[in-house]
Amino acid sequence: MIKKEIPARTIFESETMIAILDIFPSNPGHFLVIPKHHVATLMEADESLLADWIATTKHLAQIVQDVIGAAGINILQNNGEAAGQVIPHLHMHVIPRFQGDGLKHWASKPLDEQEADQLLERIQDRLKKNSTRTA
Amino acid sequence: MIKKEIPARTIFESETMIAILDIFPSNPGHFLVIPKHHVATLMEADESLLADWIATTKHLAQIVQDVIGAAGINILQNNGEAAGQVIPHLHMHVIPRFQGDGLKHWASKPLDEQEADQLLERIQDRLKKNSTRTA
Repeated sequence: MIKKEIPARTIFESETMIAILDIFPSNPGHFLVIPKHHVATLMEADESLLADWIATTKHLAQIVQDVIGAAGINILQNNGEAAGQVIPHLHMHVIPRFQGDGLKHWASKPLDEQEADQLLERIQDRLKKNSTRTA
Repeated sequence: MIKKEIPARTIFESETMIAILDIFPSNPGHFLVIPKHHVATLMEADESLLADWIATTKHLAQIVQDVIGAAGINILQNNGEAAGQVIPHLHMHVIPRFQGDGLKHWASKPLDEQEADQLLERIQDRLKKNSTRTA
């Protein structure tokens, strides 16, 4: 269970989820949706927790977008220190967006087609092995 | 239904979902999880679609992280042009992360506590009205 050790601005609480305003927001209204049951990452969460978590995220994103008058919404979640995860407990960032707010997505570049074909083969191979194992 | 007009590198397909390598990746292995049923945004999706979508995202994120040897994973989803949404059909970005890959999260700053308290009151007020309406 998540402990309420830090005074938090709680926007929503259910039996299973809590949502609080981020104390270091990227934009006004930036909030977090946190399962009370402890899992560190997306990959550790079971399907019922994930279903509850994403439904709660959607519901609150609609309300906050409407209340604050945001033009858009990003949802973002970090798994592992290399991905920017600071607190090892699953949490979804919900970030209201406004025209010209200056937040820019990460740089991207055209796909390396040769590398992609090799990766594709390896992923498909793994998926095939997994389905054989569970069949 | 999503149409396969652009030749895509499909890593996974079910009756309801398709996952393809992003043609402009932020990192190797960057892929998209796309429901076949058309909805433009998170806010338009119903709970059963969302549950399927996030479970598929988790499952494939695990496999791609393992196959490519990533240190972490980000998931990111954009709603509205102001949030960087280019294609108006729901899709989750899954981005493998590597130590020192140079991708930096958006700037943030300490919460404006007065603004936050006002917003909190307005959100809680809206949630109360919604629950009264549906009671």
